[in-house]
Amino acid sequence: MKSQEELEDLREQVAETTSQIVKLVAKRDGLARRIGEIKTKGALPMESDSVEDALYRRVLQECHDLGLDERLGTKLLGMLISESKKAQGIKSGLVPITPMMMMAKAKEIESQGKALIRLDVGEPDFHPPKAVIDAVSKALYSFKTYYTVGRGIPELLSALQGYLQRKYSYRPAENQLMVTPGGRFAVYAALATALSEGDSAIVIEPNWPAYREGIDYVGAKAITLRTSLEDGWEASPEEIKESIRPNTKAIILSYPCNPTGKIISKASFKEIVGIADDAGLTVISDEIYNDYAYKPCPTILDDLPKKYVLTSSFSKAWSMTGFRVGYALAPPETVSKMLKVLGLMITCVPEFIQLGAVKALDCDKEVARNSKAIKARIEAVSKELDKIDGLEYDKPDGSIYVFPQAVDKRFDSSAFAMELIEKKGVTISPGTGFGDYPRCFRMSLGQPEAKLVAGVRKIGELLR
Amino acid sequence: MKSQEELEDLREQVAETTSQIVKLVAKRDGLARRIGEIKTKGALPMESDSVEDALYRRVLQECHDLGLDERLGTKLLGMLISESKKAQGIKSGLVPITPMMMMAKAKEIESQGKALIRLDVGEPDFHPPKAVIDAVSKALYSFKTYYTVGRGIPELLSALQGYLQRKYSYRPAENQLMVTPGGRFAVYAALATALSEGDSAIVIEPNWPAYREGIDYVGAKAITLRTSLEDGWEASPEEIKESIRPNTKAIILSYPCNPTGKIISKASFKEIVGIADDAGLTVISDEIYNDYAYKPCPTILDDLPKKYVLTSSFSKAWSMTGFRVGYALAPPETVSKMLKVLGLMITCVPEFIQLGAVKALDCDKEVARNSKAIKARIEAVSKELDKIDGLEYDKPDGSIYVFPQAVDKRFDSSAFAMELIEKKGVTISPGTGFGDYPRCFRMSLGQPEAKLVAGVRKIGELLR
Repeated sequence: MKSQEELEDLREQVAETTSQIVKLVAKRDGLARRIGEIKTKGALPMESDSVEDALYRRVLQECHDLGLDERLGTKLLGMLISESKKAQGIKSGLVPITPMMMMAKAKEIESQGKALIRLDVGEPDFHPPKAVIDAVSKALYSFKTYYTVGRGIPELLSALQGYLQRKYSYRPAENQLMVTPGGRFAVYAALATALSEGDSAIVIEPNWPAYREGIDYVGAKAITLRTSLEDGWEASPEEIKESIRPNTKAIILSYPCNPTGKIISKASFKEIVGIADDAGLTVISDEIYNDYAYKPCPTILDDLPKKYVLTSSFSKAWSMTGFRVGYALAPPETVSKMLKVLGLMITCVPEFIQLGAVKALDCDKEVARNSKAIKARIEAVSKELDKIDGLEYDKPDGSIYVFPQAVDKRFDSSAFAMELIEKKGVTISPGTGFGDYPRCFRMSLGQPEAKLVAGVRKIGELLR
Repeated sequence: MKSQEELEDLREQVAETTSQIVKLVAKRDGLARRIGEIKTKGALPMESDSVEDALYRRVLQECHDLGLDERLGTKLLGMLISESKKAQGIKSGLVPITPMMMMAKAKEIESQGKALIRLDVGEPDFHPPKAVIDAVSKALYSFKTYYTVGRGIPELLSALQGYLQRKYSYRPAENQLMVTPGGRFAVYAALATALSEGDSAIVIEPNWPAYREGIDYVGAKAITLRTSLEDGWEASPEEIKESIRPNTKAIILSYPCNPTGKIISKASFKEIVGIADDAGLTVISDEIYNDYAYKPCPTILDDLPKKYVLTSSFSKAWSMTGFRVGYALAPPETVSKMLKVLGLMITCVPEFIQLGAVKALDCDKEVARNSKAIKARIEAVSKELDKIDGLEYDKPDGSIYVFPQAVDKRFDSSAFAMELIEKKGVTISPGTGFGDYPRCFRMSLGQPEAKLVAGVRKIGELLR
């Protein structure tokens, strides 16, 4: 019975310690509130990364000294910091208008019978390859309509191996690959695997909102590195190095960039990957637009770091957005973790769709045709944009977008986008969807040239 | 400059308080380790729910007194408890063999050219309705191959409204509905919306492993309520009421049950829903097998509680597993939250698949045919099972499974399943995939009657 008494005593101590922790958290909350008041009164900047970083370093050191799991320390501190931000009255960003929200609005207007020029969602207007549709239909009539294993059917994994070998002279092992319901899920699963709550990940902005959404969802923090039109939409490797914080676990790279169309040099890419690798980060390289590249485009496969995830999709190059099929390439142990996430949520991608994707990998001709068409559209749209005085832009190196910026420093692209739909029947995606870019907006080139030109002219008319 | 000094001072206090918190967490860890040692020495039970519950109540009370967010308190305590379990050496459950793992193994063996009798994965062998295949193929050739809005296409939402009206005399508003990539995603999104880290949810076992997987994934704890063959696989409303803990936010109900085939009475269901509703829980009712019900089956739509999510799918009744399409029905604000999860991860379900689902809702004849076939298979398999002395079972009220239990109390269904594949070429799912049921195994009835009978006979042979 002695051990029972000791147990009771220890349990009481645990409860007491828990109480003390809660009280300290409340005390910390009160301190944060007072900090917020002082900052507001003195009009001082609300967030302070250097203060946070010092805290992270101190907590990590203490975990080390006390023999506590560092992940527990990071998570705990992440929780305390986000709590004190709430207490200080720091709002976690406004909800910007994303391309998907614009699409929903456009579809609503169209359903009322109104015709629009759709420059919003990032979706090519090309038909998917006929061979793909034939293959999917044939698979349906052959009853390829049952569950498959989560990783993907062997035919598609093997077709991807051949395709990557042919394209990049890199042949992944089968266990480095997995099929996903779209590139979006590949990105989410990569983030969910690389990051834990309280961690952070670097995103170079402007960029696709899904990166920040995914980072937020897993309870991590996005470190956004702002690039600008004035700097040619390029982040310097030094800036990236400086932005790495004690809790940073990943960086997302994506070239050609959505929305700017920027492609950085292979040398810069290599340097950035090297910096990330040295810092032990996972490099997530989203290469979905790599068939729409009009100058040499780097790929993570050129020189793999220790931790990497390549994400891609059949959506853009083959114009198969609505099929929801993509893939990821990563070290086998990373793929295993990502497969758990996929298995938990969606079991598998439909087999008949996977059989369509197998066929797509043979459709080089259609990919080349689509790529050529987008290049011509970039030229045509650029020519029209050059005529508009109020806009400046960098001619895209690739992707399927142009991202102009208003010369007027007070320009509000969200208000402009709304006015543009109403008065001119043209949809665009406001720049705030991609980062802190109220003066910019994204035009998707997923429309025939004549429509694009007409759209840009209408934009010019409204701007005047 | 005075406010600057005060700021510095406050920041120092924040850092100091953070340190104290970390030190207390480490102290708590040490206490937990000693508790673990005493328990091991004294062979005392490792987990103690009542101790945890008392802690939850104390922390919630303190949050209330100190003006701290209760969710922060729950999350913090959840973190501390899972940390002290690690310190005590409590393992978070072995990884059991799930039906999906058995499927992967079976597919591997089949790919080597060996024929198997597949009683593992929960998938009917029926063909999907021809009208569905025709509709999907037609949609593909009409280029319904682009993005749609996340909630689902209007045609499918409206078809679902009509279907539910016809079937249950309940017509949901459009904003109570959403289309999902399979029932599995509907369940995940429901759990992700109802639960936060540190919360708990009640699962009546044996049950589909996806429930526990989803609860674990969102950082919550599954409270498993064990039912037994001896009690007719039925949990009493009193037991359910007693199992509700201070941090419990949801309960999952699913009738007909996978794997037992149990259907509880409408009165019991109503009583349980009432208890959950009184406790403020979200009732997640997975009604995927409701077309395979051979006695009156309750539905959440009979009497909706305040917080509810109905999840269902086209997979089973229409034999459309490989299409990955399902739906959820919940209050509009819950659906909004679930849509954010879906939008973040997968954008939308392919439009051509949704158009197939629209057609499925007209295929009552095929559903009735499938249901009749399963009923006949239950009869045939039961007759065979009756001949095997070493097994006992409850004849299923519905679903597409039978869940026999070995009379031998030392029976290990995982080892048996492996021997059964090797020696007899028959696959089953071990009972431990569905909870603490090493003596049981699940047989799926998704095979023609003759094969099922042959499979059961081979099981009988190996048992002897």
